[in-house]
Amino acid sequence: MADTDDTNIEEEAFGITDRLLSDVRAAVDADEAEVVAGLLDPLHPADIAHLLEQIETKERRALLSLWTAKLDGEVLSELDESLREEIIDLLGPAELADAVRSLESDDVVDLVEYLDEDQQEAVLKSLHAGDRVLVEQALSYPEESAGRHMQSELVRAPEHWTVGEMIDYLRSDVLLPEQFYHIILVDPRLKATGYVGLGRILSHPRYMPLKNLTESSFRTFHVEQDVEEVAQAINHYHMITAPVVDDDDRIVGVITIDDAMAFLEEEAEEDLLRLAGVGEGSLSDRVILTTKQRFPWLAVNLVTAILASMVISLFDETIAGFVALAVLMPIVASMGGNAGTQSLTVAVRAIATRDLTGANVWRVIRREAAVGLINGAIFAVVMGIVGVVWFGAPMLGVVIAVAMVINLVVAGLAGTVIPVVLERMGVDPALASGAFVTTVTDVVGFFAFLGLAAAWLI
Amino acid sequence: MADTDDTNIEEEAFGITDRLLSDVRAAVDADEAEVVAGLLDPLHPADIAHLLEQIETKERRALLSLWTAKLDGEVLSELDESLREEIIDLLGPAELADAVRSLESDDVVDLVEYLDEDQQEAVLKSLHAGDRVLVEQALSYPEESAGRHMQSELVRAPEHWTVGEMIDYLRSDVLLPEQFYHIILVDPRLKATGYVGLGRILSHPRYMPLKNLTESSFRTFHVEQDVEEVAQAINHYHMITAPVVDDDDRIVGVITIDDAMAFLEEEAEEDLLRLAGVGEGSLSDRVILTTKQRFPWLAVNLVTAILASMVISLFDETIAGFVALAVLMPIVASMGGNAGTQSLTVAVRAIATRDLTGANVWRVIRREAAVGLINGAIFAVVMGIVGVVWFGAPMLGVVIAVAMVINLVVAGLAGTVIPVVLERMGVDPALASGAFVTTVTDVVGFFAFLGLAAAWLI
Repeated sequence: MADTDDTNIEEEAFGITDRLLSDVRAAVDADEAEVVAGLLDPLHPADIAHLLEQIETKERRALLSLWTAKLDGEVLSELDESLREEIIDLLGPAELADAVRSLESDDVVDLVEYLDEDQQEAVLKSLHAGDRVLVEQALSYPEESAGRHMQSELVRAPEHWTVGEMIDYLRSDVLLPEQFYHIILVDPRLKATGYVGLGRILSHPRYMPLKNLTESSFRTFHVEQDVEEVAQAINHYHMITAPVVDDDDRIVGVITIDDAMAFLEEEAEEDLLRLAGVGEGSLSDRVILTTKQRFPWLAVNLVTAILASMVISLFDETIAGFVALAVLMPIVASMGGNAGTQSLTVAVRAIATRDLTGANVWRVIRREAAVGLINGAIFAVVMGIVGVVWFGAPMLGVVIAVAMVINLVVAGLAGTVIPVVLERMGVDPALASGAFVTTVTDVVGFFAFLGLAAAWLI
Repeated sequence: MADTDDTNIEEEAFGITDRLLSDVRAAVDADEAEVVAGLLDPLHPADIAHLLEQIETKERRALLSLWTAKLDGEVLSELDESLREEIIDLLGPAELADAVRSLESDDVVDLVEYLDEDQQEAVLKSLHAGDRVLVEQALSYPEESAGRHMQSELVRAPEHWTVGEMIDYLRSDVLLPEQFYHIILVDPRLKATGYVGLGRILSHPRYMPLKNLTESSFRTFHVEQDVEEVAQAINHYHMITAPVVDDDDRIVGVITIDDAMAFLEEEAEEDLLRLAGVGEGSLSDRVILTTKQRFPWLAVNLVTAILASMVISLFDETIAGFVALAVLMPIVASMGGNAGTQSLTVAVRAIATRDLTGANVWRVIRREAAVGLINGAIFAVVMGIVGVVWFGAPMLGVVIAVAMVINLVVAGLAGTVIPVVLERMGVDPALASGAFVTTVTDVVGFFAFLGLAAAWLI
């Protein structure tokens, strides 16, 4: 990923160069509203959002007080969620409503769903009646459903239309979505029956029936389906437009690939952070919030560590008799913890991408155990030798070797079985597996090593 | 993510149900070629690839020997990389060439770039002369560059054309890409000057100059630019088509959002697996390959763990005099390791998404140290009490408390500084940070705890 040559490019986060950033900061410091506007106005909303994320809270406030008038809805919807609340708090309801009115329905929903009731109502009231109904409708679907994340703006056409009729309709004075890539064909009851890419319409003569141009990638998704599944299907089938339908198969919206892409990126980030015991961390979060987010995982880890310590304390007399055990025991636990993390990361990712299913779970479990056995055997030999050379006690070498094999096999098993079981129980394996797996490898590691030492050495 | 209600849906990996899978297996076992074809032929290539990934090597061979004739190029390009080689080995060069001929240039490149020379040549020879030139051209660009991953199939138009001229051209007998969403406008020297979405062309009258319809999201990418940067820009700016240009700004290809999405998904997975010390793991890999992939990280960890043990052995007399130290010492190291992993995961992810830049690195470092200090203080109090209650030694409580604060602050610092420094040095922080951070927290944890104990307790 990183490369020595492109350090300069890496420094430029998209449209935001370090230079631009310091110019903006200087202008904000000097209270020069016009300079600020001159620098920010040409930027893409996504870049403005990125810039706001890069500066500190105080600067952000100063900047926005110089520049609020220009803050449009797209900047809000591009912002990191934690910052969005902060900035919405700074805007008056009228400014907020102004900003929001230009957005597509899915972006409005995304923005208002976590606002407090007063603000939400202010935004909803400011929308045109038709848009308001669409947004309220979307808000009535469950969180994380396709209905919550779809945009209602789409182009549909009766399935009996021809290319010519379609073009005439599009050229008429009708309101079209900002971006659209497919026409959804519907029957007289508005049931979605197929779709046609715009490229096909443009490349065929006017008399051609749209029905003859439909694409085989067409499939529909139910409004209440998990949006992550829809996003994964979009990626899996290389779809650009995913039609969303209600109970009667009537078309009610579409999810476009750009939103699905942003969604999957966020999900991947969430999984990564959850695996590391960081709830919903973001760089823009402040110290207190970050401390709170990280605390629970550390607390769980403390309990785990104390449990492991209790196992050690069972053998305190053994250790008192042979201090080398205290020196070597963290090695077995640490190797088990790392091997367990390897297995569990592969398993959690495979569950998320649906590569790990009922059909292959036993094969994977067998494989992980085998991998643990082989790597365990190799490191057992190494550690056996280290034990003998370092402490001159052959039996100590044998103890650490056997404990190593046991713990690495257990790590492979626990690293796979625990996430699979958690997922079956409806618990997010990314969130909870780590603590369980480490507990197992710590307890087994210390118990095997010290237990064998107590039995064989003393 | 996971939800108690959707267990059944989760079980179905896209088009592949457990039922379908067992039907296919039964048909393969019974050598019934027609049944196999009947089950597989209606499936989307991505689903067939997914099915092949779910079954075991032996079954895969049996299935392909019953069904090779139908294996088309798209299935190959959807396959997991590790399986691709296996399956290409099973195909004769003629079959392979047949399969490949229907693919777009970027998919051909993706497929042949890692083939051995004989197979690569066989594939290249089987392509039409024009396609072959394009593929060879793409292969001449650096790995991971935009030029390697772009498709050469695109639609361009002189910038002075009108909507009518464009439609007439598209309706003429010209060969068009399977999918396209924008027309790239070029000047007489083929320099890309803008693009127009197909929706705009369809919704405007024939006399409208294309120049008046260009979209503001237009920006170009150089053929040698890192493809990950292009994919991130596509996500950042919600682009559907990213035009790729040569040194003279002439259009040479496009990267489409569906490929960028698949690419970012793979990168996110790679980062996750690298952070966990799993090179390029995939569920289809076999035991020996998996063992080899996981070995290096465990070996690094062993060195780390031995280093930590050496620190412990400095204090073996202290421990022999007070065994409670052996019982409690893993707690300090473990808490530091976890806090360090939290900080480093946030930092690695932020570097990858370019949220962590020169502009805010000091702020983030200060924040991480502060978070470490606060959480450290809280856990110091808890552990101080545990130390007193468990072992009845107030001074032991003080020692563990102070060591905890030290190690959690160090963890926050190391977890941020190490990935940033590695990235500046051109080393992938996802790959290498973990080992360094754990070494620091282990060494500091044991040294602080045992060192303070030696000084204050004995």
